[in-house]
Amino acid sequence: MSSKTNIYLDHSATTPVDARVIAAMRPYFSRIFGNPSSIHSFGQAALAGVDKAREQAAAFLNCSQNEIIFTSGATESDNLAIKGFFKALREREPGPRHLVVSAVEHDAVLEPAAELKKEGVEVTRAPVKRNGVIDPEKLKSLIKDNTALVSVMYVNSETGAIMPIREIGKMIGKINEKRLRDWEKKSPAARGDKPHPVYFHTDATQAVNFFNCDVKWNYIDLLSLSGHKIYGPKGIGLLYKKDGVPLKALQKGGHQEGDLRSGTLNAAGIVGLGAALGLLDEKTRVAENGRIAKLRDALVTGILKNVPDALLNTDREHATPAHAHFSFLGAEGEAMLIALDLEGIAVSTGSACASGSLKASHVLRAMGIDEEIAHYSIRFSLGKYNTPSEINAAIKKLPLVAARLRKMNPLYRKR
Amino acid sequence: MSSKTNIYLDHSATTPVDARVIAAMRPYFSRIFGNPSSIHSFGQAALAGVDKAREQAAAFLNCSQNEIIFTSGATESDNLAIKGFFKALREREPGPRHLVVSAVEHDAVLEPAAELKKEGVEVTRAPVKRNGVIDPEKLKSLIKDNTALVSVMYVNSETGAIMPIREIGKMIGKINEKRLRDWEKKSPAARGDKPHPVYFHTDATQAVNFFNCDVKWNYIDLLSLSGHKIYGPKGIGLLYKKDGVPLKALQKGGHQEGDLRSGTLNAAGIVGLGAALGLLDEKTRVAENGRIAKLRDALVTGILKNVPDALLNTDREHATPAHAHFSFLGAEGEAMLIALDLEGIAVSTGSACASGSLKASHVLRAMGIDEEIAHYSIRFSLGKYNTPSEINAAIKKLPLVAARLRKMNPLYRKR
Repeated sequence: MSSKTNIYLDHSATTPVDARVIAAMRPYFSRIFGNPSSIHSFGQAALAGVDKAREQAAAFLNCSQNEIIFTSGATESDNLAIKGFFKALREREPGPRHLVVSAVEHDAVLEPAAELKKEGVEVTRAPVKRNGVIDPEKLKSLIKDNTALVSVMYVNSETGAIMPIREIGKMIGKINEKRLRDWEKKSPAARGDKPHPVYFHTDATQAVNFFNCDVKWNYIDLLSLSGHKIYGPKGIGLLYKKDGVPLKALQKGGHQEGDLRSGTLNAAGIVGLGAALGLLDEKTRVAENGRIAKLRDALVTGILKNVPDALLNTDREHATPAHAHFSFLGAEGEAMLIALDLEGIAVSTGSACASGSLKASHVLRAMGIDEEIAHYSIRFSLGKYNTPSEINAAIKKLPLVAARLRKMNPLYRKR
Repeated sequence: MSSKTNIYLDHSATTPVDARVIAAMRPYFSRIFGNPSSIHSFGQAALAGVDKAREQAAAFLNCSQNEIIFTSGATESDNLAIKGFFKALREREPGPRHLVVSAVEHDAVLEPAAELKKEGVEVTRAPVKRNGVIDPEKLKSLIKDNTALVSVMYVNSETGAIMPIREIGKMIGKINEKRLRDWEKKSPAARGDKPHPVYFHTDATQAVNFFNCDVKWNYIDLLSLSGHKIYGPKGIGLLYKKDGVPLKALQKGGHQEGDLRSGTLNAAGIVGLGAALGLLDEKTRVAENGRIAKLRDALVTGILKNVPDALLNTDREHATPAHAHFSFLGAEGEAMLIALDLEGIAVSTGSACASGSLKASHVLRAMGIDEEIAHYSIRFSLGKYNTPSEINAAIKKLPLVAARLRKMNPLYRKR
């Protein structure tokens, strides 16, 4: 697969590993191969790499190193954040609790939430607006006295919609302050226990390349991210857990990562994740966001001009610079994906994470998009190695492919 | 850290990645970087690598490809095998169940067992003999009508003791046959539900380099293994689950691996694990076992000859060819490890997986070894790159290091 004939426009599914990241990882396979938990120098050399990566991650998130838990990826981080949090609460004291998640979360949040529901946790799905963005006022109205956790992704993987994370974080902070003030106003006899705060988790997997992930600035308590979406390796991720946030391990064994995530530390992967985060300084990010937005906008303009009946589902005012989600009416998404692949263009019908599913995307349905139209969807997600000539080539091929598929669809009539 | 001045004798903690494994993995970071769940050719190219690795793993274990679940390592595999199994039973029908584990399991088995105990599962620890090997007859006597799972490791990581896995598998098979026969003898009215079989899990992490892991020949239902103990990468492992064995996912999300283990497939890691297993053909293994046993025996002979008061805790008749576990009376293990490290020799005090713990090993205590003697312990675990000259160098340095430490111990008097 040479880059000459293949145009990869599916960076939300995964990204190639940056050459600098590979270079950073390489020694950790054979030369610095020790188990970071070993006391001898082979182990300590590997631990030094892990420590440096932890520094890089902490610098990126503006947190302490002991607030970083390395995991096998964002799916594990999300499971740990959601289920590990309620496990800790349950062990502390029983009682009915409430979890609020956005309706457009990844299944790595929705599925653990569904399991908690079976176990007695009350779960509410916060709706999104037509553009895929959550409404913070609506979200606020869903928070109740027994709400323990709110989980809202930073960026939606399908449409690229950005959620107002900082605003949500601030709003939750205010609710917590009010809870505390109300409690303090009561007489010591009537008070009871100090009220539990509402905690805030965000799955930032799709945001890390583009946006500020400072956990203090964004008022975040728990944050998940993954290596392979940011030009790092697959099989590695992390969970940021603010000091003091309740959490219990799901995976137990050798007591690594402060006993919150057991398993031999994946030194090469951790070093790769640290290196990938280290490359995302603000200056580089801002410049790249500008470059990629131009390419994405050229793609959108080209499509809207050349492909009839193409509906843009990404609200570019409130999305990453890399996403363009379209419904090509009459051209079934999966067929379109395959036809484009034959032309050397790699796209997705939505989330590649949920392999082979033919259900219409829950994200599009939550946006109020008609189920039929949802089936005509294609996601373009651009990345740092895409070039203007690739975008031009895609724009040329798209009208032909769409027209060909539409010809085969007896139900399609040009509007 | 050059191999000239450093002698690595801690292969049970982790191993360097074989150059052929690194070569197999390399393309999967940048050239074949797709998400194996993506339908386009970038994804399918990565999936082809995963499929090949699944073939290699299935060939190694003599099972079907759909019986392989790739995980982040043996810790995850063990957690999934133990907790995922009881989760499936619990969802099927409630009721008290019984789990038997050996007393010398890794914490990745013991900790999930402890959690199940809190949740109402009855847990029994099967004792081991003085040489660290489980007694199958004693184990048999612990199996009761409500026993659902038996988990016995193939090889103990600290002493290298081999458990009679095949014998245990056969014994469990006979119990299941008898249960079924007894049930069939009853009149259809008196029968009730068909009896549940006892299932058999083995953590084979430390056995894969040395012994036959044919799951049919060994009568195994669930088997855990890890990449980084077999000259493959860290952060990857697998769980073999025999078709039909009850299991529910612990980590949920994108529904990968038959919905039993969600998370983007770590293609490079999986390819590395497959390649590492592919290198372990029987002929190579048998030859290497002979070579390594000679080195290990030379080490043992050298130590017993040159270091007074050295007790060999590994029963070489019933252990891997690579292990030699000693108690050097009067020389505290941790101090010995550090002193040897300064001399360029890397060993372990036991399990490197449980970092920094100063508790006497539960394995040695289960063998009936006095707690004080346990604190004087050092594990040597040899590997495929060790040479006779390295062993000779270690034999020369050990008496001096032991003598130096003993001088500082006022309690030590030569026996």
